[in-house]
Amino acid sequence: MPGVASRLVKIPIITLTTDFGTRDPYVASMKASILRVAPEARIVDISNEIAPQDILEAAFVLKNAAPYFPAGTVHVVVVDPGVGTARRPVAVRMDDMLFVGPDNGVLPLTFDERPADQVVTLDRSTFWRTERPSSTFHGRDIFASVAAHLAMGTPLGEIGSAGPELQKLRWGLPISDEQGIRGWIVHVDHFGNCISNIPRHVFATLASGRDPKFYVGSAILRGIHTTYADVGLHEPVVLFGSSELLEIAVSGGNASELLSIRKGDPIDVVFIETRQDAAKDAS
Amino acid sequence: MPGVASRLVKIPIITLTTDFGTRDPYVASMKASILRVAPEARIVDISNEIAPQDILEAAFVLKNAAPYFPAGTVHVVVVDPGVGTARRPVAVRMDDMLFVGPDNGVLPLTFDERPADQVVTLDRSTFWRTERPSSTFHGRDIFASVAAHLAMGTPLGEIGSAGPELQKLRWGLPISDEQGIRGWIVHVDHFGNCISNIPRHVFATLASGRDPKFYVGSAILRGIHTTYADVGLHEPVVLFGSSELLEIAVSGGNASELLSIRKGDPIDVVFIETRQDAAKDAS
Amino acid sequence: MPGVASRLVKIPIITLTTDFGTRDPYVASMKASILRVAPEARIVDISNEIAPQDILEAAFVLKNAAPYFPAGTVHVVVVDPGVGTARRPVAVRMDDMLFVGPDNGVLPLTFDERPADQVVTLDRSTFWRTERPSSTFHGRDIFASVAAHLAMGTPLGEIGSAGPELQKLRWGLPISDEQGIRGWIVHVDHFGNCISNIPRHVFATLASGRDPKFYVGSAILRGIHTTYADVGLHEPVVLFGSSELLEIAVSGGNASELLSIRKGDPIDVVFIETRQDAAKDAS
Repeated sequence: MPGVASRLVKIPIITLTTDFGTRDPYVASMKASILRVAPEARIVDISNEIAPQDILEAAFVLKNAAPYFPAGTVHVVVVDPGVGTARRPVAVRMDDMLFVGPDNGVLPLTFDERPADQVVTLDRSTFWRTERPSSTFHGRDIFASVAAHLAMGTPLGEIGSAGPELQKLRWGLPISDEQGIRGWIVHVDHFGNCISNIPRHVFATLASGRDPKFYVGSAILRGIHTTYADVGLHEPVVLFGSSELLEIAVSGGNASELLSIRKGDPIDVVFIETRQDAAKDAS
Repeated sequence: MPGVASRLVKIPIITLTTDFGTRDPYVASMKASILRVAPEARIVDISNEIAPQDILEAAFVLKNAAPYFPAGTVHVVVVDPGVGTARRPVAVRMDDMLFVGPDNGVLPLTFDERPADQVVTLDRSTFWRTERPSSTFHGRDIFASVAAHLAMGTPLGEIGSAGPELQKLRWGLPISDEQGIRGWIVHVDHFGNCISNIPRHVFATLASGRDPKFYVGSAILRGIHTTYADVGLHEPVVLFGSSELLEIAVSGGNASELLSIRKGDPIDVVFIETRQDAAKDAS
Repeated sequence: MPGVASRLVKIPIITLTTDFGTRDPYVASMKASILRVAPEARIVDISNEIAPQDILEAAFVLKNAAPYFPAGTVHVVVVDPGVGTARRPVAVRMDDMLFVGPDNGVLPLTFDERPADQVVTLDRSTFWRTERPSSTFHGRDIFASVAAHLAMGTPLGEIGSAGPELQKLRWGLPISDEQGIRGWIVHVDHFGNCISNIPRHVFATLASGRDPKFYVGSAILRGIHTTYADVGLHEPVVLFGSSELLEIAVSGGNASELLSIRKGDPIDVVFIETRQDAAKDAS
């Protein structure tokens, strides 16, 4: 029964990550551009409240949401201090997803600096909303429309000219020696939880069974827990959060405010030799 | 023509009520988990701006939005101070809707303490996003995925083991005597309108035709009106709002700020004997 | 092949522009009312963060987003200081779109005072959510439900009685003479960009090649650029934004804060005779 087999329901999904806020006509204009091309598209806001022009925050938020979407999702990311200048508009394939936005470093950060599988420059105005895009709003006039065409099945290779590679931008990585790790707070979330750039596997390897002591903001903390409520209400807690990154929180409270921790602050981890280790060392 | 009859278009609707805010990857990750299982689902945010860990506010907002949705809607509510601890994840049938979330009292409050029609414990990881859910983000790894399976037609009885009953949590009810009512402000909305816990029918029964006088915040008010613009601009007004609860507002202004009323404040209603009543009493 | 021809996928789109905020059950209740009638509707928030009761802001945002939507879109706009009073609920056809809301002047402002193509008064309760709408929430009980019926194909002429014309409300237009233009800041966006009511074509006609000098807030500025990054970081820039209106911005910064410009402030443009013009005049 070919009739049945051909009923392949493929619902295109497009996400938005922008610094446009939610008060102005900007985000809705992008969604309108998408719906003109792809009326069936499911549009999901990842966040439209990225701090203005904050490429690092956009990449952090996007890379912690994108992997949970179904294969084929098209992610539009428009945090674009250089809109209207010579920076390239691009579309990119990475693993089983597509990404559309300005080539300003946000995508390499999202991919943790792995090279993209395929990069095209968006130089074919037939896929834009208009041949004369606004010089201040490529989100509406180029990126949204291109994303909708990709979601509707236009191959990446047709939507623009191949290459060149993306502009590089790198995360500041934690540094470490035998005694410990210095990392940085890369995100303070809505709850005031302070998320560092120290991944669980890096921590585990370096700790090799020793107990950690954490110096961050106004606090010195000991011990790692599993979840927020493992400590008493209003007490600080260190754990690996849902991004598998080391995180400082306060149970039922705002760690950023209570412990004076801000985005960009250092966090120092010192590994303590346990008595047993010390005994072993002495032997 | 069975072919026609079988084209039953049933669009699953899933709502979200969380304290996750809209800046972080959290809400989008939940939507991604839903769309992996139920790509056709219509996802509606009831609110993602519940005050952090405020179970009462979550219940108030959800119970004032949920009844307007079509039968079969699946409501996900994740305001979850105890994530990762022993509190149960549950799914519940109540009237013609389903609810998914932690068993922390938010659901009984939403149902105004009526017992749920059916309760299951979410103990079958085959319906989760992953067999090893993050200990800090059950919203993404358990609740969203379970809601999507329910929306796609998995029966409640299959999604987890039956029972036991939900943890109880009770609203503070207004108290009253012959002379009047003491209630509380349970919600201050975006406009600064102050919504009490005094329902219209309770008020009407107790008033039995007498005129009310209201003591609340810095104001003493008289009379009940029908809508905000029944009084002059910037004047206070008492009315029954869209939730059929007694509400203090200021026409074209912010009652919470102008009358110094905050969530949790008491409101006292005193019923005044009219002259006619007084004459009757004296006879 | 009639089977193929009949597969006309027409997905109804409904937008929302309100001052309801995103913390309360109000917006979700409207969406619920829509989905009860039009389960397939695509609902797009234009903005639910219009300043409370600010009809001008609602019209500004709506008219800068609505034109980008596909033909047939139904726009619901509920910024309604007079809810429950005698002001009419209306539905309107304008060009290839429909608009639903209170007749309080917001629609004529959205249409830049052009007369609507067709106006009906919403006096048929069979298209409402309930025959007894809340006197404080017509958004949920009348407008959302009517919009959904229109989106599902009920003709405008059936949804209510024809006429009368909409209440008039007019934008304050810029004034000008030979030497220059006085306009006003009509919107300060999320980035702090200050958008005036001076359109590009008006400006170009009046300038007729002369150089402009701008007096606005604490700044005196010269020159017009194309995009934000045409000047150095943190420097002010005057340009025509994505709405084709004269706009004051600061590259990578917040012009409203840095130049002390607020909504409603005047902006004066003075045209400078260039030396060549002066020479010509003297000849």
